[in-house]
Amino acid sequence: MTENNKDKEVNEKLTNMKITPWEVDVSGSAKGTFDYDHIIEQFGCQKFDPSFVQKIQEATKELPHVFLRRSLCFAHRDFDKILEMYKEGKKFYLYTGRGPSSEAMHLGHSISFLVCQYFQKAFNAPVVIQMTDDEKFVFKNNLSLAEVTGFGYENMKDIIAFGFDPELTYIFLNSESSHYFEENTLKISKMISLNEAFKVFGFDMSANCGMLSFPSKEIAPAYSSSFSFLPKQMPCLIPAAVDQDPYFRLARDKARGLGELKPATLYVSLLPDLRGIDRKMSASDESSSIFLCDTPEEIAVKIKKHAFSGGQETLELHKKHGADLQKDIAFQYLRFFMDDDKEVDRIATEYGSGRMMTSEVKEKCISVVQKFVKNFQEKRKEVTEDVVKKFMSKLKKI
Amino acid sequence: MTENNKDKEVNEKLTNMKITPWEVDVSGSAKGTFDYDHIIEQFGCQKFDPSFVQKIQEATKELPHVFLRRSLCFAHRDFDKILEMYKEGKKFYLYTGRGPSSEAMHLGHSISFLVCQYFQKAFNAPVVIQMTDDEKFVFKNNLSLAEVTGFGYENMKDIIAFGFDPELTYIFLNSESSHYFEENTLKISKMISLNEAFKVFGFDMSANCGMLSFPSKEIAPAYSSSFSFLPKQMPCLIPAAVDQDPYFRLARDKARGLGELKPATLYVSLLPDLRGIDRKMSASDESSSIFLCDTPEEIAVKIKKHAFSGGQETLELHKKHGADLQKDIAFQYLRFFMDDDKEVDRIATEYGSGRMMTSEVKEKCISVVQKFVKNFQEKRKEVTEDVVKKFMSKLKKI
Repeated sequence: MTENNKDKEVNEKLTNMKITPWEVDVSGSAKGTFDYDHIIEQFGCQKFDPSFVQKIQEATKELPHVFLRRSLCFAHRDFDKILEMYKEGKKFYLYTGRGPSSEAMHLGHSISFLVCQYFQKAFNAPVVIQMTDDEKFVFKNNLSLAEVTGFGYENMKDIIAFGFDPELTYIFLNSESSHYFEENTLKISKMISLNEAFKVFGFDMSANCGMLSFPSKEIAPAYSSSFSFLPKQMPCLIPAAVDQDPYFRLARDKARGLGELKPATLYVSLLPDLRGIDRKMSASDESSSIFLCDTPEEIAVKIKKHAFSGGQETLELHKKHGADLQKDIAFQYLRFFMDDDKEVDRIATEYGSGRMMTSEVKEKCISVVQKFVKNFQEKRKEVTEDVVKKFMSKLKKI
Repeated sequence: MTENNKDKEVNEKLTNMKITPWEVDVSGSAKGTFDYDHIIEQFGCQKFDPSFVQKIQEATKELPHVFLRRSLCFAHRDFDKILEMYKEGKKFYLYTGRGPSSEAMHLGHSISFLVCQYFQKAFNAPVVIQMTDDEKFVFKNNLSLAEVTGFGYENMKDIIAFGFDPELTYIFLNSESSHYFEENTLKISKMISLNEAFKVFGFDMSANCGMLSFPSKEIAPAYSSSFSFLPKQMPCLIPAAVDQDPYFRLARDKARGLGELKPATLYVSLLPDLRGIDRKMSASDESSSIFLCDTPEEIAVKIKKHAFSGGQETLELHKKHGADLQKDIAFQYLRFFMDDDKEVDRIATEYGSGRMMTSEVKEKCISVVQKFVKNFQEKRKEVTEDVVKKFMSKLKKI
């Protein structure tokens, strides 16, 4: 089976789990949970190979990001090719995005932006960031276009505060997309039949025409020809959450027909909700999500009160069996946000063996998350309207 | 039944004829032909009332256009309201368009532009003209986007040569549509379900996503808020061929939900193909279509050779029964293009009674069409790139 057929095959046959941008139903998977190995198999991705970490370190001469070191990036498509090409002197660009469904972004939203920002810095790579206000408008019945566009502008400021380079980053709102971009959208939309859209995205006859128009808009930026400032045939790397894979499977499937390169993808684990490892953090559930605008006190209260503990029920049992690290939210957050590998290992050993208590791990987690959010909020203050304008201006030709 | 429900009802129930922008199948109609009365009834339009001609004459102080005087405009929706509002001092704008499927436009394409140009002049009304290169691209498998956009640019020059006022006319290519316009497109696309699109446009599951994206783009310009230079809530009049009615039924059906005025429509008879009254002129059939770039000789040959004659088979029978004017293409063309009412009436009497021969009517037709095309070609020569630019620039605020 050629590789091109593989993407097509997955698009046609994926049935026993529903992971689309609008619905995540993993009840059909063997474990009934986010079974990343199962997702990798079903989606036809490749597993993220730990040897990549070494290769990245050789290429960039610095320690790769925590998410890479700890396999929080768990799967990819052609990431190895991106690395190979980079070694041969070929540059790539990064593409990511945000659906602005509300004004407040939470900690979970930061993950793929942090990966992007890391790659931008380490590889000196341009980044394009799509704000899909159009998507939120056509999919959400309770939101007006003015509202979602407004959220888009606010969310941009948060995104900029993750530390992107203004000289190498272009952020755009779909409702204001440019002519150049529109051409590719049209070409892609012609290549996706309703049959295919129903299969890949789970649409049915109650869908509206706007929904059917949307996928080609999320796909277009995965080809460098969508941006006048990028060289044609520049490889694209898309760090994303796995629920966005349907778009990029299609982007890969349609690439050849459009004379474009297949984009590479890199899938980052979802940051779990405070209340349990199987729940994706959601902006609609305030008590179990940590928002980027939360105060240190709010963060402390939420983690103390709501973070699911993997510790045992009694002190005795805990000392005997140790904590279940996989299920312990405070520990999992440390894996995402604590930079010190040795300290994470030490906590894993101590807590996993029952010598460390949940309260101590939660305190560590609170302090790490508070520090992350504080840093973020300081940078966020510097994001003025002029800074936003700079990021929304097209880049100089690269 | 409220009027709003009427548009909705027609959209839902229209079944026994298929008249969509991409397919005209009138075999389900009682006569199996373009039965305009039947279309009016099925589509829930109003018949064009001859008393309008008098009213227009009073309002404009000049003789209304041939197409109106001879009821070639055969049906409408709310045209009476447009006239009423105009009498009360409220201005309206006109909206028409062209799907650039080829470089050469034929005589049949001129009809709705001639109506628009007449209304613009008589009522001093702004005109917006949409070039749907995007539509032709997503619906035609054999055309590239660059090709249809190229056709769009060429067709624009023809359209301008019909005599539109550069100060009051805005022509735009859909593939370059503006931000303002895009907002309304998005709002409309959210309001059209797939169920509805299948019913109204005859789509099925083999349609591509681009096709489903298109209707909202043709609908958007029917609301004045789609154009920054038009006042909000300015009434819109759309002179069109009846195969475009599905769009404008939807435009009317959705208007209230979007806080917009229902557009009024005016349906002009299709100019028949040379070979018969039931055939719509088609650019793909060169011998039976008269192109706007044809030479006088080509026009003469085509009409002599191909124009279906309503005359009788022998001179004797002709003198006895007279010509069938309804089926005589040369006579029908005179109805569209000969300005002199008395002369048309005289020909009708003489030819209908058998005193005038087909060859004489064809000669008159040839001379009228040659003159029309010659005038057109002279104006066409004056349409330079600068003139096109002027028409593609947004109008001054009206």
